[in-house]
Amino acid sequence: MAIKAPRGTVDILPGDAEKWQFVESKIKEVCDRYHFNEIRTPLFEHTEVFQRGVGDTTDIVQKEMYTFEDRGGRSLTLRPEGTASVVRAFVQNKLFGNPNQPVKLYYFAQMFRYERPQKGRMRQLNQFGVEVLGSDDPAVDAEVIDLAMSCYQSLGLKSLKLVINSLGDKESRENHRRALVEHFTPHKEELCGDCQSRLEKNPLRVLDCKKDRDHPAMATAPSILDYLNRESEDYFNQVKSYLTAMGIEYEVDKNLVRGLDYYNHTAFEIMSEAEGFGAITTLAGGGRYNGLVEELDGPSTPGIGFGMGLERLLMALEAENIEMPIDHQLDCFLVAVGAEAEKESVRILHELRNSGIQIDKDYQKRKMKAQFKAADRNAAKFVLVLGEDELQKGVINVKSMETGEQAELPLTELTGRLQKILKGGNISE
Amino acid sequence: MAIKAPRGTVDILPGDAEKWQFVESKIKEVCDRYHFNEIRTPLFEHTEVFQRGVGDTTDIVQKEMYTFEDRGGRSLTLRPEGTASVVRAFVQNKLFGNPNQPVKLYYFAQMFRYERPQKGRMRQLNQFGVEVLGSDDPAVDAEVIDLAMSCYQSLGLKSLKLVINSLGDKESRENHRRALVEHFTPHKEELCGDCQSRLEKNPLRVLDCKKDRDHPAMATAPSILDYLNRESEDYFNQVKSYLTAMGIEYEVDKNLVRGLDYYNHTAFEIMSEAEGFGAITTLAGGGRYNGLVEELDGPSTPGIGFGMGLERLLMALEAENIEMPIDHQLDCFLVAVGAEAEKESVRILHELRNSGIQIDKDYQKRKMKAQFKAADRNAAKFVLVLGEDELQKGVINVKSMETGEQAELPLTELTGRLQKILKGGNISE
Repeated sequence: MAIKAPRGTVDILPGDAEKWQFVESKIKEVCDRYHFNEIRTPLFEHTEVFQRGVGDTTDIVQKEMYTFEDRGGRSLTLRPEGTASVVRAFVQNKLFGNPNQPVKLYYFAQMFRYERPQKGRMRQLNQFGVEVLGSDDPAVDAEVIDLAMSCYQSLGLKSLKLVINSLGDKESRENHRRALVEHFTPHKEELCGDCQSRLEKNPLRVLDCKKDRDHPAMATAPSILDYLNRESEDYFNQVKSYLTAMGIEYEVDKNLVRGLDYYNHTAFEIMSEAEGFGAITTLAGGGRYNGLVEELDGPSTPGIGFGMGLERLLMALEAENIEMPIDHQLDCFLVAVGAEAEKESVRILHELRNSGIQIDKDYQKRKMKAQFKAADRNAAKFVLVLGEDELQKGVINVKSMETGEQAELPLTELTGRLQKILKGGNISE
Repeated sequence: MAIKAPRGTVDILPGDAEKWQFVESKIKEVCDRYHFNEIRTPLFEHTEVFQRGVGDTTDIVQKEMYTFEDRGGRSLTLRPEGTASVVRAFVQNKLFGNPNQPVKLYYFAQMFRYERPQKGRMRQLNQFGVEVLGSDDPAVDAEVIDLAMSCYQSLGLKSLKLVINSLGDKESRENHRRALVEHFTPHKEELCGDCQSRLEKNPLRVLDCKKDRDHPAMATAPSILDYLNRESEDYFNQVKSYLTAMGIEYEVDKNLVRGLDYYNHTAFEIMSEAEGFGAITTLAGGGRYNGLVEELDGPSTPGIGFGMGLERLLMALEAENIEMPIDHQLDCFLVAVGAEAEKESVRILHELRNSGIQIDKDYQKRKMKAQFKAADRNAAKFVLVLGEDELQKGVINVKSMETGEQAELPLTELTGRLQKILKGGNISE
């Protein structure tokens, strides 16, 4: 039996690849308008980057990373998410020294997570994401959320839900943490093993637990929003007022926690509400991480970003029946008959292609009729026919498959004439 | 000390990323004109794909792969080259059943090789490549070479050298193999350990050895070109005549062997001859591999392709002093003064960006003068100023940084007016 792609990975084939190209180019346009620049980091990092940059207590680091030793004995890990790598690059390349602050970055990157594969959850997944490093202006939080929404809307998505929350600053979080420990400790024995250890290491993540979500103590757990200090509350109010000024609707969800450590202040998720989208509705998630640059040995620098799953974006487009404007037509197909015409056609293809014209021919030694069929299958707009007669006369027959119109064009003028015809000019001059 | 990117990998930062985008978009345009379609395969494969698809006796498989076990005990390997993965995908997805044959594919992909890093040789490298599966027409070999040359030429490269060779069909190779064994066996003890084992497993690769290249027996070794049977010679002659018909210059190098197993018939390399390009001059290499699809459990299918290093392509562009036409300007920068203007500016940015206009603002609480400096640093074409006066009048001041011309535009008309101005219209109507 033939070898298959590893479990949880897929090939993106012609027919689908054009959809990916379209989505990526639309998102890139949005990034340009919002003045974000691209960064590309390596596929793998020293494992420590994620242990410190994602957090040792997270499921990602504990259970889901592809970690291995290279031939030099270094522990490397395939990137499971985008932020830690970008922050590592920001510190290593001293981007904090750039006079243009904040540094506004975007990336398209594959991520790797060893999870049980299911619809919308692959082991190799594609993400688009942004990170803004160097500003603690709440207007940046609003800009980042706005950019994410714009990406979806520029592609035509309508059934979207934006959910936001504040995780507060350090002081607020510590007060909330104490309240959580106090709240859950009487129920400790009833919680799952993971939660018992979370309660000591990072009690906020108890709220995120899938096993214990129906425990009665969950519903009555203290909310971070009741523990925000004055500064954190002001900050959150400003973010909300900016969103309102931009006409962006949102819901506040006090249980929105996010799976990664180091988040503070603004946290947000965008969900698809399209019918039949499936069980996992989150399209994008992000938030502020003001301590992370220091955690990775950089100078104190505020930051905020999000990651957006592109597989799920494509699923959402499908769920909303959005057709992408992809051109499946071929400009020209050349039908050659006879050995001499075959050889001349190689020269003609070379010349036309290098003059900006898209053209293909048969390479299967097909008979004339089958070559025409191939032109049809490729949805050729024009078919060029070169036989012995045409060769002798120094011409080639050009036929519009749309109008049926045709003409013999001199080979010496072919390139210029075809360029005009493809711009909408008439075949017979 | 801060954690660095793993040895042999680099970050591509803003400033450089735009160059990569430009190169990729030009190459994509060439692929469109040649009617090649994109394929994306996973970053890693079952190790067997490369053991069988690259060849167990190659340096790549023996010494340079990033191989590891996933949490389920599977042996996975980060893709060291492009062909084996594409062929695996071709077989698994039954692309041989597509009525459009041959299947013409291209990819942009990161490759991973554990080698000693040096200029132009990274452990994570970026390649563009194509594979054509399903035709044994020598015109396809010429088309593939033509496409590679077109990619370079469309970017402006001039100092290129194309070298071709034929490795013949199975019969020719076997006759040549016997001649090689006969030739080298008397010198076996003088050759390096690797070559002694190559002499048994794959004697052709002795000719590729870096250690033994000065051994006198190398210069007198039998050439494959003297062992081509009639069919192989005919095939090679046709490829050459097509190249000539297209006006593509080439040299025949009978020592050109290529590092991978399974190559047959046409082999080629493209080198940079630019001054100061460096010691490693190969920009691209490829060839025909008619046995490979069967080796990966597919039906008998001819194939040919090449891989092109993009780091080296960028080095060659630099060596030839080719400037890429990259726009470093920003359309608009908004200078806001006062808390109310700040808030209104967030709304304005949202509206303009979502109407196709590129605009940014300050997020560092800078004073007015410093905001103007930031607009300068970002090479803004237009600066918009919004202060308390303007807000009260319901206008915004727009100034062209090129001409110095300025005007107050009503906020209610801003979007439409700016769209016209950016298309070359006058600021004051």
